[in-house]
Amino acid sequence: MGKTIIEKIISRNTGIENVKPGDIVTVNVDRVMIHDIFIPFVADKFEEMGFTKLWDPDKVVLIYDHLVPASQIDDTRHFQRGNAFAAKYGMKNVHRSDGICHQLMTEAGYVKPGNVVFGTDSHTTTYGCVGAFSSGIGYTEMASILGTGTMWIKVPETIKVTINGKLPENVTSKDIILRLIGDLGADGATYQALEFTGDTVANMTVASRMTMSNMAIECGAKCALFTPDEKTAEYCEVELTDEMKDLVGDADAHYVREITYRAEDFVPVLACPSQVDKIRPASELTGTKIDQVFIGSCTNGRLEDLMRAAEILKGKKVAPFVKLIVTPASRKIYLQALENGTLETLSEAGAIITHPGCGLCCGRTGGILSDGERVVATNNRNFLGRMGTSKVEIYLASPATAAACAIAGEIVVPE
Amino acid sequence: MGKTIIEKIISRNTGIENVKPGDIVTVNVDRVMIHDIFIPFVADKFEEMGFTKLWDPDKVVLIYDHLVPASQIDDTRHFQRGNAFAAKYGMKNVHRSDGICHQLMTEAGYVKPGNVVFGTDSHTTTYGCVGAFSSGIGYTEMASILGTGTMWIKVPETIKVTINGKLPENVTSKDIILRLIGDLGADGATYQALEFTGDTVANMTVASRMTMSNMAIECGAKCALFTPDEKTAEYCEVELTDEMKDLVGDADAHYVREITYRAEDFVPVLACPSQVDKIRPASELTGTKIDQVFIGSCTNGRLEDLMRAAEILKGKKVAPFVKLIVTPASRKIYLQALENGTLETLSEAGAIITHPGCGLCCGRTGGILSDGERVVATNNRNFLGRMGTSKVEIYLASPATAAACAIAGEIVVPE
Repeated sequence: MGKTIIEKIISRNTGIENVKPGDIVTVNVDRVMIHDIFIPFVADKFEEMGFTKLWDPDKVVLIYDHLVPASQIDDTRHFQRGNAFAAKYGMKNVHRSDGICHQLMTEAGYVKPGNVVFGTDSHTTTYGCVGAFSSGIGYTEMASILGTGTMWIKVPETIKVTINGKLPENVTSKDIILRLIGDLGADGATYQALEFTGDTVANMTVASRMTMSNMAIECGAKCALFTPDEKTAEYCEVELTDEMKDLVGDADAHYVREITYRAEDFVPVLACPSQVDKIRPASELTGTKIDQVFIGSCTNGRLEDLMRAAEILKGKKVAPFVKLIVTPASRKIYLQALENGTLETLSEAGAIITHPGCGLCCGRTGGILSDGERVVATNNRNFLGRMGTSKVEIYLASPATAAACAIAGEIVVPE
Repeated sequence: MGKTIIEKIISRNTGIENVKPGDIVTVNVDRVMIHDIFIPFVADKFEEMGFTKLWDPDKVVLIYDHLVPASQIDDTRHFQRGNAFAAKYGMKNVHRSDGICHQLMTEAGYVKPGNVVFGTDSHTTTYGCVGAFSSGIGYTEMASILGTGTMWIKVPETIKVTINGKLPENVTSKDIILRLIGDLGADGATYQALEFTGDTVANMTVASRMTMSNMAIECGAKCALFTPDEKTAEYCEVELTDEMKDLVGDADAHYVREITYRAEDFVPVLACPSQVDKIRPASELTGTKIDQVFIGSCTNGRLEDLMRAAEILKGKKVAPFVKLIVTPASRKIYLQALENGTLETLSEAGAIITHPGCGLCCGRTGGILSDGERVVATNNRNFLGRMGTSKVEIYLASPATAAACAIAGEIVVPE
């Protein structure tokens, strides 16, 4: 019997040849990520559990991103606690202002194809973009991993999503994942692995795949996996091994569900307020007035996203009453966008460019909205109250759609 | 009897030949500035007073800066109220994300030499850098001006400050104004005009003068004036007229006090927690550990400030535990600093670069501190609780001193 990608990763990790969905197994963790909001709770729980040392300090990454720069009194207490914990237990992988955790984990080389990784943030599914099994956990589980280096999991079932063909212009991987979430429903893949395949996916950049694995959690998926290829190897700065190339679903693997799309059928879509699976084509929403646009986040704050937006905004101006907030996903991307003129184009068009971080996406700072306002945003969640009051309407979209909306001051189809 | 600069401005404005300190006169207002925090109160008061139109919509400037990008739920209500007010009364001069009000008023050409200008923010004294009389007022007074175009003032006495000679390296106009505030005390010039003269001042850029007029309010001054010169004319994009050149204190003018400094005697200084007049030389504070550095604000967020910091930080790294927050004073400065490589240098050194605005300076967002933390900051106030909790210690300094401290992780003398 063949295996799906997740089954192969778990089998290799555990040494158990025949893993099958539903099995409870203990995996050896290759890397963990703790973000600033959770570090105080992880630290307390770790010591409460009686641990006195980390299983492997080099495998622990602490990233300050949700609270950088601090927007509330006492935010920096998290940094104080994090710094003290890192110093006490000899952790060197601490990022204090380098960008969003999910960007840094692959960008800074912490995650490689085939790895098993856990993080304290729900969008830890992101690292599936390089063929790693990664998922979000709570602080008690994280504290336990810090002491033991292991974690139990239930082997997930797999949904195979095949996409072939060429995407229409101004349709991106964001439109694909939004459509898929709409088709599956917000709980349509709960505790299941998504496995993406087909030539559309093969032709995508790692950055575009990242958008899809990032949002997999929005339909409940435990993880979302792409087969490593030459692009993955280049991005991860590793040699592409046969073992990596073999991280592909076998022809006789068992899938709980198979979904096939033609790339040509995708159109620019938005997730409407206030459910991530309430997907409608942009063409059905045109004319909806907006107050703000947000381009950024771990979902769509990469160089290609900013460049796409800049291409659309070049020589144009954001509508007078609209605020356009742009947040690159990392300092590296910020510097790349600075060097290649992208930030200049965006600023000249009227964008407010913030430091890389999670501020606006999670409603902490950097563009918080108020009653009756509408925002088109490239991040991953439009939950009620996420970016301001509970009377804010959040529409999720691709950077291309978002940029076009910023110019028009209303929802439009990007052209 | 000769006149001081402020007496000349008021005399010309009112047509009263012999104005003298203590006289109550009514001035014709050339321009007013309202900032986002105050617009709802100004708007309400304006209508409560029964006004139905603005005295001159073109003379009214509305600037969103303290709340851009919004960091709290309901911040954007101020924009909604401001936008509605501007639309209703035909105001066109609305800046929604272009930078800090006190930078924009001269940079965007709203204030010219000899003008009489009022603003709703206390640091409205800034425009004295181009030889304008400008001062901060409350929202009731602003509402009254919006309806009438006039304002009563008491003619202030004048303190003449003469500075001759060449400033030592790494000593800037910020060190001068801090020293002066220390010498005068926080209430040492209450309701008086400061008049700056001497070759040190003549050799300064308009940007450096701006730092001094900006902080004049910190010793209680009603305004702080510099004689317009070729640099002023170039900055303001006007012809330098005889009338402008005549905005100089007459030899036989009456001064309530005269203070003279030798430029060579100035040293890098800091205002210590938590009084702006508690001035000590950097050399007496060396070794004081810090947690954060802030370079920016309407006091020191100009291109020369950012470039000075970048010069010091080039090829170096911010101390690992220190956060360096940089906030350019306007979008124009942001773009200039982006184009000439300053932002790149700062980001590579580890700086967090924010959008132009007032966020951190007034403790709203973008680097808020917590109990027991210390910050070296280039802004204008170190009041208790201003940038975080009441247990944060704020040291005010020049960009050169601040940049050197960021590298060292403690207070040092810039070299």
